[in-house]
Amino acid sequence: MSNRSERIEHDLLGDLAVPIEAYYGVHTLRALANFPITGIPISTYPNLINALAYVKEAAALANYELRLLPEHKMKAIVHACQQIRNGIAHDQFVVDVIQGGAGTSTNMNANEVIANLALEHLGHERGDYAVLHPNEDVNLGQSTNDVYPTALKIATYMGIAQLVDAMGVLRVAFERKAQEFRDDLKMGRTQLQDAVPMTLGQEFSTFAVMLDEDQERLREASKLICEINLGATAIGTGINTSPDYAPLVCRHLASVTGIPVTTSPNLVEATQDVGSFVQLSGVLKRVAVKLSKTCNDLRLLSSGPRAGLGEINLPPVQAGSSIMPGKVNPVIPEVVNQIAFEVIGNDVTVSFAAEAGQLQLNAFEPIIAHSLFKSVAHLRAGCLTLASKCVDGITANRDRLRSLVENSIGIVTALNPYIGYTNATQVAQEALVSGRSVAEIVIERGLLTRTQLEDILKPTMLTQPRHNLPLS
Amino acid sequence: MSNRSERIEHDLLGDLAVPIEAYYGVHTLRALANFPITGIPISTYPNLINALAYVKEAAALANYELRLLPEHKMKAIVHACQQIRNGIAHDQFVVDVIQGGAGTSTNMNANEVIANLALEHLGHERGDYAVLHPNEDVNLGQSTNDVYPTALKIATYMGIAQLVDAMGVLRVAFERKAQEFRDDLKMGRTQLQDAVPMTLGQEFSTFAVMLDEDQERLREASKLICEINLGATAIGTGINTSPDYAPLVCRHLASVTGIPVTTSPNLVEATQDVGSFVQLSGVLKRVAVKLSKTCNDLRLLSSGPRAGLGEINLPPVQAGSSIMPGKVNPVIPEVVNQIAFEVIGNDVTVSFAAEAGQLQLNAFEPIIAHSLFKSVAHLRAGCLTLASKCVDGITANRDRLRSLVENSIGIVTALNPYIGYTNATQVAQEALVSGRSVAEIVIERGLLTRTQLEDILKPTMLTQPRHNLPLS
Amino acid sequence: MSNRSERIEHDLLGDLAVPIEAYYGVHTLRALANFPITGIPISTYPNLINALAYVKEAAALANYELRLLPEHKMKAIVHACQQIRNGIAHDQFVVDVIQGGAGTSTNMNANEVIANLALEHLGHERGDYAVLHPNEDVNLGQSTNDVYPTALKIATYMGIAQLVDAMGVLRVAFERKAQEFRDDLKMGRTQLQDAVPMTLGQEFSTFAVMLDEDQERLREASKLICEINLGATAIGTGINTSPDYAPLVCRHLASVTGIPVTTSPNLVEATQDVGSFVQLSGVLKRVAVKLSKTCNDLRLLSSGPRAGLGEINLPPVQAGSSIMPGKVNPVIPEVVNQIAFEVIGNDVTVSFAAEAGQLQLNAFEPIIAHSLFKSVAHLRAGCLTLASKCVDGITANRDRLRSLVENSIGIVTALNPYIGYTNATQVAQEALVSGRSVAEIVIERGLLTRTQLEDILKPTMLTQPRHNLPLS
Amino acid sequence: MSNRSERIEHDLLGDLAVPIEAYYGVHTLRALANFPITGIPISTYPNLINALAYVKEAAALANYELRLLPEHKMKAIVHACQQIRNGIAHDQFVVDVIQGGAGTSTNMNANEVIANLALEHLGHERGDYAVLHPNEDVNLGQSTNDVYPTALKIATYMGIAQLVDAMGVLRVAFERKAQEFRDDLKMGRTQLQDAVPMTLGQEFSTFAVMLDEDQERLREASKLICEINLGATAIGTGINTSPDYAPLVCRHLASVTGIPVTTSPNLVEATQDVGSFVQLSGVLKRVAVKLSKTCNDLRLLSSGPRAGLGEINLPPVQAGSSIMPGKVNPVIPEVVNQIAFEVIGNDVTVSFAAEAGQLQLNAFEPIIAHSLFKSVAHLRAGCLTLASKCVDGITANRDRLRSLVENSIGIVTALNPYIGYTNATQVAQEALVSGRSVAEIVIERGLLTRTQLEDILKPTMLTQPRHNLPLS
Repeated sequence: MSNRSERIEHDLLGDLAVPIEAYYGVHTLRALANFPITGIPISTYPNLINALAYVKEAAALANYELRLLPEHKMKAIVHACQQIRNGIAHDQFVVDVIQGGAGTSTNMNANEVIANLALEHLGHERGDYAVLHPNEDVNLGQSTNDVYPTALKIATYMGIAQLVDAMGVLRVAFERKAQEFRDDLKMGRTQLQDAVPMTLGQEFSTFAVMLDEDQERLREASKLICEINLGATAIGTGINTSPDYAPLVCRHLASVTGIPVTTSPNLVEATQDVGSFVQLSGVLKRVAVKLSKTCNDLRLLSSGPRAGLGEINLPPVQAGSSIMPGKVNPVIPEVVNQIAFEVIGNDVTVSFAAEAGQLQLNAFEPIIAHSLFKSVAHLRAGCLTLASKCVDGITANRDRLRSLVENSIGIVTALNPYIGYTNATQVAQEALVSGRSVAEIVIERGLLTRTQLEDILKPTMLTQPRHNLPLS
Repeated sequence: MSNRSERIEHDLLGDLAVPIEAYYGVHTLRALANFPITGIPISTYPNLINALAYVKEAAALANYELRLLPEHKMKAIVHACQQIRNGIAHDQFVVDVIQGGAGTSTNMNANEVIANLALEHLGHERGDYAVLHPNEDVNLGQSTNDVYPTALKIATYMGIAQLVDAMGVLRVAFERKAQEFRDDLKMGRTQLQDAVPMTLGQEFSTFAVMLDEDQERLREASKLICEINLGATAIGTGINTSPDYAPLVCRHLASVTGIPVTTSPNLVEATQDVGSFVQLSGVLKRVAVKLSKTCNDLRLLSSGPRAGLGEINLPPVQAGSSIMPGKVNPVIPEVVNQIAFEVIGNDVTVSFAAEAGQLQLNAFEPIIAHSLFKSVAHLRAGCLTLASKCVDGITANRDRLRSLVENSIGIVTALNPYIGYTNATQVAQEALVSGRSVAEIVIERGLLTRTQLEDILKPTMLTQPRHNLPLS
Repeated sequence: MSNRSERIEHDLLGDLAVPIEAYYGVHTLRALANFPITGIPISTYPNLINALAYVKEAAALANYELRLLPEHKMKAIVHACQQIRNGIAHDQFVVDVIQGGAGTSTNMNANEVIANLALEHLGHERGDYAVLHPNEDVNLGQSTNDVYPTALKIATYMGIAQLVDAMGVLRVAFERKAQEFRDDLKMGRTQLQDAVPMTLGQEFSTFAVMLDEDQERLREASKLICEINLGATAIGTGINTSPDYAPLVCRHLASVTGIPVTTSPNLVEATQDVGSFVQLSGVLKRVAVKLSKTCNDLRLLSSGPRAGLGEINLPPVQAGSSIMPGKVNPVIPEVVNQIAFEVIGNDVTVSFAAEAGQLQLNAFEPIIAHSLFKSVAHLRAGCLTLASKCVDGITANRDRLRSLVENSIGIVTALNPYIGYTNATQVAQEALVSGRSVAEIVIERGLLTRTQLEDILKPTMLTQPRHNLPLS
Repeated sequence: MSNRSERIEHDLLGDLAVPIEAYYGVHTLRALANFPITGIPISTYPNLINALAYVKEAAALANYELRLLPEHKMKAIVHACQQIRNGIAHDQFVVDVIQGGAGTSTNMNANEVIANLALEHLGHERGDYAVLHPNEDVNLGQSTNDVYPTALKIATYMGIAQLVDAMGVLRVAFERKAQEFRDDLKMGRTQLQDAVPMTLGQEFSTFAVMLDEDQERLREASKLICEINLGATAIGTGINTSPDYAPLVCRHLASVTGIPVTTSPNLVEATQDVGSFVQLSGVLKRVAVKLSKTCNDLRLLSSGPRAGLGEINLPPVQAGSSIMPGKVNPVIPEVVNQIAFEVIGNDVTVSFAAEAGQLQLNAFEPIIAHSLFKSVAHLRAGCLTLASKCVDGITANRDRLRSLVENSIGIVTALNPYIGYTNATQVAQEALVSGRSVAEIVIERGLLTRTQLEDILKPTMLTQPRHNLPLS
């Protein structure tokens, strides 16, 4: 028996008391009891909650237009969905981010919250489902198996857009530094060994270009997730829908979200397929791999202050050590490295979950979603933090950069076309053993005159192609 | 300038206002600003907070005994640590679970909270570090580089013990079912094809045995993380410690925790090495892989109700579908599958972070810790949930089990020693094509008499070795 | 001193005797000694050998056009490259597939073989490098750091084209079956539980559609690897090249290969970046994941013959067991599953290698190449094998398919719009408990008349949307 | 019809012509046709072929003792197995390393080769299976499902022993260098930033200690794979064996191999479980991760020659660049890094294959075996190569090591106990900004006298704990 702080709801397992003030209902409560895994509710991902509200609104509009849902119910549902997108009742989305049931609990949670918000709007008590029912009205013409993946795609699309923006902030930060360092000659390194000269500006421009490319790749992958299966219902055959429903609900969803969603041409395939999530996860991994490489470079170039490469300085943002006074560490690149490692691990989780799909459905979309949402959110935080707490404040150690070039053996490569690979190899070896400079040895050996040498080794000529090379 | 709701603290970057009521201080605040990554504070892992308190208490006791720390400071620090282990001030451990700096922020957070709790105990204001200092007293003789990995090991040890207990609960649940189903003959399957008979009890006993083995493997891996590097300080050379400190602090730590910690014989190596975490993560992955396989089997065996294998029933715990009435899904095994996929992904994250260590330290221990803690906690939740919400309520469909055996071709294998592999193959092929029973065909072909056949195919004889096999 | 079976060559380490008949030289021999890892030579990948020959030919043509290489040398080099593409001297590409040095040994191996083939063509002895030199002529204007990644991209492009063709063969095989099974009604399953009806043709069409999509994704990813860095030389600054070289060599490469290669706009970035390989590997992983899911389904659907789902039969291709007579196993899908697992593991290897790049180069491209080449070749073999040895011979068990639908509870979903989710749930529960049919119970409860029911449950209506649904 | 170059054999698919000289038979030929995947035959792994011969010999001995196999057959089989272990007929083990069928083709290949070798020994024609039969005699009392995993374990055990030996060679190489460099003071680094002094000997000793620990871990993991399931036959119930068979065959196997194998207490579980392979793979991954870290360190420490850390020199083993004369690269560590990346990827493959096991068997053991065998063989090659081609020839740049310490700020940490963390921080900051030495500033500020300072900073005192620290 219930008291005034509870109401009784019913499902196939029997009666259950629901807190009177809760917008969620019996199905949500069952899921809460069944999945005490992480303690993290799905409301952690506002994009997902909003995406669910978009999908339910589009479905109500389509059902109304097909004369399957009365106007007053449609209006109440639409109102509820808009409230949710205004941030209302997000705390009612309480089911665990890791859950069994292929997202059914998330969908049921949404159906219940929307139904009760709608009932409230219509002036009824929560739980008065005879008036407006979570499954028969809010979920009308739908199944978790089309609603949930569609909502995941909408949420992911929104998340990727935010990530791409954050990457843009970081890209601009690197571009500014590339411009600032455009004339600072330095030694390039391959395999950690001194190679040939370049500018620090060229080095920083690569960080920007990598982000630029990755933004483009994310945009491309975003397009793949615009193909939805709404209208598929249980397994893609569209059971319990009108033939007009799928195109109609898609049009409404595109309209309310502003996202160019389209209906998959084969809904049976689309309902079981998670390929676009796998691909997107792969692209996020690519972003992570390259971002981590960039952070590794920043840490290498700023190593020191005295026993490292010492070419650049990262801005200090906190004391580096509880025991070593004055030590400052590259903590911002380090945290981005760790985000990258997490993203790469998440990609493996996604692969496992995707491969485990069986027959007409992949039951493991919740962990795919959780993994993608984490990757997107953390990469975004990492990019913004890296830009503002690190890149913006980087300075160059110009004296050191210059002296490393002047002192280098690697410039011998530029003499190759003039004295040949074999002679150049001998010069390099003598320089290494004797500690003398390349120029000195070349002149002493009579391979080139000082004037020729100075011409060849002019700094601006070292970092780009040149005309008038001799014949081999 | 501060007001009455703030106090001013100082670090190498300058002054910073700290909320007057905060037990943490300037270093923690810097970290909060620097790492806005997940929004999840380290207090999410109570084992870690308690472990830090154990380490700091042991260090204070050792320093006091070496006459490096005055008694009143020691007592105040010990009191603070014990408060923390009683659950006090956990909400003051606010730095992000994903952080740069090799755990420095976590250690600094602990030093500050303990210092201020100790100051309070001594009757001083928070921030009055001239009296008792986070770095010079709480962190005395320590470095993040020995404190942090040691605390991770203590926390992991405690977590593994909890996980092993949960696995025990699940193991017992499977053992009970193995006993309950010990006489239920069924078809075994290899490669999803009908093989030879066994009992359902034998099948369930394998689930229990796998857990039993995995518990043992976890216990073994736990031993590896009992080797600590406390006393190593910055890089393992023990700079700023007394030669007596390392053994002493280890003895105190063992005593306060009850965990058989020992000091690593080579502290330089121990300080940079994260091998024991990698190994432990590998064992957790093993647990995950096998638990996932078990859940796959439960889902297969309970598939149906009418178009699947239908050998067992999982207890219904929630409605399975928002569109398909009466559908009940194996949601509990599914959530455990997903935990497993997460753990396997976490293992890749750990591998990446471990490989990225450089020279005298691995700066990426925070993500290793985060990954391990998640894996341990979620596996534990998964085991307990699987036991109570699923395994305990499993029932067998005895009629179906029996009819599948009676109807099977696979029993022909038992005739092998009597009629030969070649004859048996022909019988099997004819049975398959004709739909007739193996027995019928064998008798018709005069390969065995009905009496012989009945003797060979006696149910109890089919699921174990037998005496008196004929000569080849 | 050499004898008549050897010639002496020289490098920075000194003299070394090379077998007189070898087309490779000193650098190749050093690499052979240095990398005795797998015993598998790079000639295992003919696409790579041919790609190297394409790159060297294009470089010779460009250098000749820039008047940096005399005509007779150009012609000899071009002739040598064409010989190689005709299959000559592939056995001279002997360095190990896993090698240090960022591909230098592979490039050196190519330079030497081509130089000696060219010398032979010019009527000179092998090793007579004063006439035509591996580094100064064959490698003119090049560096391993632009030649090697460019050759990898050409080779990968060719490999992907072959894979896409093989996927096409498999796709067509599935399409044929989809057509053959288009009228076979069956139960769809979600989460391994009976869901709603569909046709077996719909099920098989999903396998075809997945391949179709994946072919498209591979074609897209192929485009990314058409962006090359030839002309970058050592680190991307184009040192030792003419400004006209990069566009010219790209044009020649496009012309000789027929592949639409373009020069990267930022060669410094392009030289250190392996993002396009990471992305391609991610797409291969996607292909693997989905192919594995397809094989899992084939194995599930063909499980039995009597104690499984038994809906389809895979053609027997070998005896399944050394002990169980007549057992036939799904060995072809199983081998494809395993290829998929390998590809997914390879993707992690690629991620690690990509992340480990430092500064101006990624030294780990050889393992990236090895991993990708394996994935591409094995997936191709898997697709062709799956098509010809399995899919082409699949048959349906029509009686069983039909009886599972007739016997199912899942059809109750189709009644939802007419009797409501709550009533439908009660019917389903009663059917499950009592073993009676859904139709019987619905009529007995007076929810629908027999005529209404027959109309709703008409087989052709169950597998698609329908008009005239009632108002909610 | 056959001609003289062929013989006809028969299986459930019908007749097939086998090359007359082949020791393998019809089942092997089917597998050859079915699995054209990698082109690599299982004979690539001699340990596996020998292990199969051990298992078959032990089975023959046990069957003879149980009077199930006549003496002449036993003797012929034993003789054949010993021939194989002497290297005879390895080229007859031709089935692909990646194969479906759970290893059945490998077992069948072994049965056939052994049967025909035995027939030859008995003076009969190949293929005369009426005299001695591959399945009924060689495979007597066995199933692929117990033979194959047992053989994998034996083969892996032998491989691990070889790997542990190779790791020992590498460990000793590092230990020798640790001894050689024991007095070379250098700066330690954490997070790539200058930390506190240590010796180069201490640094190299960590590389040795890591290997030492990993050898121990491998030995432990080796013990787990000594538990076998021989006697389980098809699914672990021991069908078609005598109760005495399992213990007997285990005793014989232990005796012929010298490996302490034991029979698993639950053979049903043991037949489906691949946990010990997963664990072993995890330990191999641990070895890989740590070896890769070591190689990363070697590459960092030897970076330069002039623009890097330049602390050590790796011996040159080949020319480093096709364009940069005289460049020498760390190619040996680089190849070991790549082996490590491969091993880590293999571990993911193993996880996937392990998780995919279903019900009474894991059908994916062939890819588990392939992955493990590659990992073991390549790690072994890597260790031996790293020892002989790199570590043995490493030299130290003593002048540079010394000057980096003398010039460092990091030594300020040693002053902590004497001047306090706060003062020390200020000194460090001034040193960094001004470029002056720590000592100078400390004396100038009157924090310590020159004599005190010299005492505290005595080199030998900096790399270990010290007595007489002051009270906090």
